[in-house]
Amino acid sequence: MLHSVDQILLDDLTGLPCSAQRRALAKIITLLESTRLDHRHRADEVLNALLPKTGKSFRLGISGVPGVGKSTLIETLGLYLIEQGHRVAVLAIDPSSSISGGSILGDKTRMERLSVLDGAFIRPSPSSGTLGGVAEKTREAMLVAEAAGFDVVIVETVGVGQSEIAVAGMTDMFLLMQLPNAGDDLQAIKKGVMEIADLIVINKVDIDADAAMRAQLFITSSLRLLGFQGNPDHASNDQKLWHPLVMTMSALQGNGVKELWEKIQQFKQLQTTNGKLQSRRQQQAGAWMWDRVDAGLKNAFRNNPAVQTLLPGFIAEVNQGTMAPSVAARRLLEAMGHEFF
Amino acid sequence: MLHSVDQILLDDLTGLPCSAQRRALAKIITLLESTRLDHRHRADEVLNALLPKTGKSFRLGISGVPGVGKSTLIETLGLYLIEQGHRVAVLAIDPSSSISGGSILGDKTRMERLSVLDGAFIRPSPSSGTLGGVAEKTREAMLVAEAAGFDVVIVETVGVGQSEIAVAGMTDMFLLMQLPNAGDDLQAIKKGVMEIADLIVINKVDIDADAAMRAQLFITSSLRLLGFQGNPDHASNDQKLWHPLVMTMSALQGNGVKELWEKIQQFKQLQTTNGKLQSRRQQQAGAWMWDRVDAGLKNAFRNNPAVQTLLPGFIAEVNQGTMAPSVAARRLLEAMGHEFF
Repeated sequence: MLHSVDQILLDDLTGLPCSAQRRALAKIITLLESTRLDHRHRADEVLNALLPKTGKSFRLGISGVPGVGKSTLIETLGLYLIEQGHRVAVLAIDPSSSISGGSILGDKTRMERLSVLDGAFIRPSPSSGTLGGVAEKTREAMLVAEAAGFDVVIVETVGVGQSEIAVAGMTDMFLLMQLPNAGDDLQAIKKGVMEIADLIVINKVDIDADAAMRAQLFITSSLRLLGFQGNPDHASNDQKLWHPLVMTMSALQGNGVKELWEKIQQFKQLQTTNGKLQSRRQQQAGAWMWDRVDAGLKNAFRNNPAVQTLLPGFIAEVNQGTMAPSVAARRLLEAMGHEFF
Repeated sequence: MLHSVDQILLDDLTGLPCSAQRRALAKIITLLESTRLDHRHRADEVLNALLPKTGKSFRLGISGVPGVGKSTLIETLGLYLIEQGHRVAVLAIDPSSSISGGSILGDKTRMERLSVLDGAFIRPSPSSGTLGGVAEKTREAMLVAEAAGFDVVIVETVGVGQSEIAVAGMTDMFLLMQLPNAGDDLQAIKKGVMEIADLIVINKVDIDADAAMRAQLFITSSLRLLGFQGNPDHASNDQKLWHPLVMTMSALQGNGVKELWEKIQQFKQLQTTNGKLQSRRQQQAGAWMWDRVDAGLKNAFRNNPAVQTLLPGFIAEVNQGTMAPSVAARRLLEAMGHEFF
């Protein structure tokens, strides 16, 4: 059952854009981020109630190493989109914030011109929890922003750990920003990020146009060597499928923002027509559920009293080599009451 | 309690090398691979009983794409080592065997000269189960081979899925074989395999020496660009730490086998002196236990009656967008009796 307070929040959220809506949006996201059990139950009811109003935005993931110019690009793109009549929400996934306690992403001060506009909503990364937990809160926040009528949702992340994979796994399009140097390119290939990018933007072309062109050539040939010309999901001669693009721009000078948005629109159009946008969202919803099931199972294991009693001794025995790791695992699961496997 | 039949097998296994030992080795591995519950209980007792006799071999992981020349290298190296008085066990991890029903790795016919020698033991990949299950059986088989006195255990795998990561996670040294072409190099970088290699061998130098040299230069500069010169676990100016090496050879012509073994011996010596060999094994034992705990938890989830009842409907609702994936996950875990999270 939906809490009566939450019903009012929901009405505000889906009402006309005004300060009440903005307040409701912030309050609901805070409710979702709460670790209190009663809050979590209420949050689930709210989520299910607003689901029918979600899914109508375009979800754009943006990643790149610190210093690549993500905030500059997002502010420039956001201002351009609001000028065109769009409403833009910017969310962030910053796994490092759970360590430092402070977020290096999504703070309003970085996007000063964008954050003051009525058409924009900027929310920093949830500041505690594992990547899985932080990603879940961001996914949920995305749904709330959609229910509030934001039609472009940008999720940004730094290239820490598996955060790019998490962002690509919750958005319709994944845009990877690269610095014009080969080390950055190889890192992206190594992490498997290059291959999941729908669009690769080499930023800061204003600083070194030659290096940017070299990077563009290297990435293009790398994608070919990695076999993406033969991969039907990425590129083919079939005009119905999207070919990952490599473009250069200067987010600081604003050069290429219009062209960037045109490319994004082309992508959206194509993916809508060929059904990939919908199938990707369905696949993402399934993967999200399984992610959370996995996390919950691990949590249940850690909190099981029998496991807590046995675990320290077993770990010591495994370390000393007096118990085989596979035997230890099976005995811990038996202690939990799970069938032997 | 150890089964009396298994006690006899264990006595044979750890007795003098003879046909009885070889038979015991094969029988115990078959017991470990059995999916019968009573066999699994017996297998665990056997494993714990033989543990004190394990750990004395050098564990060498070898990977590379099909056609790179793994069998040729292993046979050439194996024959060389047996000539030097070593006893060599060759195990395999082939995740594709669970799909095809047949193993493309580790079949004795591929290593005709090695397989007939008393000092060699060759065991194909377990032919069913997930990668995690196949890897577990291979880890356990490695312990049995060690208890039987094999002092070099080679675990080979094809570059399918995460099998290289599994092999690197159970061996003292990970040797990556590469073909002399840039596509192969980029694939290895993309999969994160290059960075976990202790030694990279570019094979088939006899076919194209120029291409092999280019590959050597490319890999060396890639490792530098990926930052491994600054990574204390891989390379540094500190002579106490191992620097990953890139060498060329022709396994077919036997060129470089002696040099290869010398490098492996240098690695072993250094890792023993600086304590990395032992810390790596401890870390691997812990990771193995957690891997199996994860697999067991997923198994318990799948087999839970309440989950089996609810899951199909929940998946449909998540697909249709009428239930949030995170809500579905939490309700499934509650149905299992796990605390809300």
